[in-house]
Amino acid sequence: MEEVSVPGAMGTSASFALRLGQTVFASASLLFMSFRVEFYGYSSFCYLVVVMGLVIPWSTTLALVDAYSILLKYVPRQPKIMWVVIIGDWVLSFLSLAAACSTAGVIDLLLDTGQPYCPVKLCRRYQMSAATAFLSWFLSFASSLFNLWLLPSL
Amino acid sequence: MEEVSVPGAMGTSASFALRLGQTVFASASLLFMSFRVEFYGYSSFCYLVVVMGLVIPWSTTLALVDAYSILLKYVPRQPKIMWVVIIGDWVLSFLSLAAACSTAGVIDLLLDTGQPYCPVKLCRRYQMSAATAFLSWFLSFASSLFNLWLLPSL
Repeated sequence: MEEVSVPGAMGTSASFALRLGQTVFASASLLFMSFRVEFYGYSSFCYLVVVMGLVIPWSTTLALVDAYSILLKYVPRQPKIMWVVIIGDWVLSFLSLAAACSTAGVIDLLLDTGQPYCPVKLCRRYQMSAATAFLSWFLSFASSLFNLWLLPSL
Repeated sequence: MEEVSVPGAMGTSASFALRLGQTVFASASLLFMSFRVEFYGYSSFCYLVVVMGLVIPWSTTLALVDAYSILLKYVPRQPKIMWVVIIGDWVLSFLSLAAACSTAGVIDLLLDTGQPYCPVKLCRRYQMSAATAFLSWFLSFASSLFNLWLLPSL
């Protein structure tokens, strides 16, 4: 198997950085949303928590695979594995975009209705959570695109 | 230029059907949202209206291009044009997913708060609008994927 190097594709250090970024942002989003906040009152927020709970193990696993590939200089790039990775990234990036958008929509509505539903401190947390979810979406979309780019050359 | 036929790629009748579907669903979403409904009270709903207002002319234009290609049996498949089409589809599909999700999140919250904010008849309309926006997203995502598939062979 010849070695093709697309920066950001599985097994490169750029991919490791992307995966690490996804894990960090998804964890931040989860923490902002679930720590001392009554998120279960709104179904969008519950959805965000569920999706981020899926993104974290997925990205952590792939970050470990990347770290292993970099250290041992062996890249497990069978087309079948790549397909699984690409489709997984794809689905998770759509889910996290959907979660971030619905959360953002709800926050905007809560900000409009004002004080009783949304104390300033709580709403700031919700906003941070939505923003980090957007960043996590962006990074997993980038990973998915880089891996898709690599696919025809395998 | 050799003729490659990926069903659903630009210039085929499947692509024409997809474009027509996008136009129909986006128009339905826009009508459900803007006809006798005070959509400008919620920023998510305004966003949905704006995005659907972008999807309709885009899909109509490409449907006309497809109809022209089918009738005259000439397909304008320069890679540059394909790139523009793919990136446009991509961006619009993300925008419409985002709009549909934020609308769905807001509707869910309105349904929870109940009667004064969301009379049954109005909320049904909002739901129909979000559902048709999701369908329109799905079709433009499919178009984009088919065209991307064609690209390496050009």
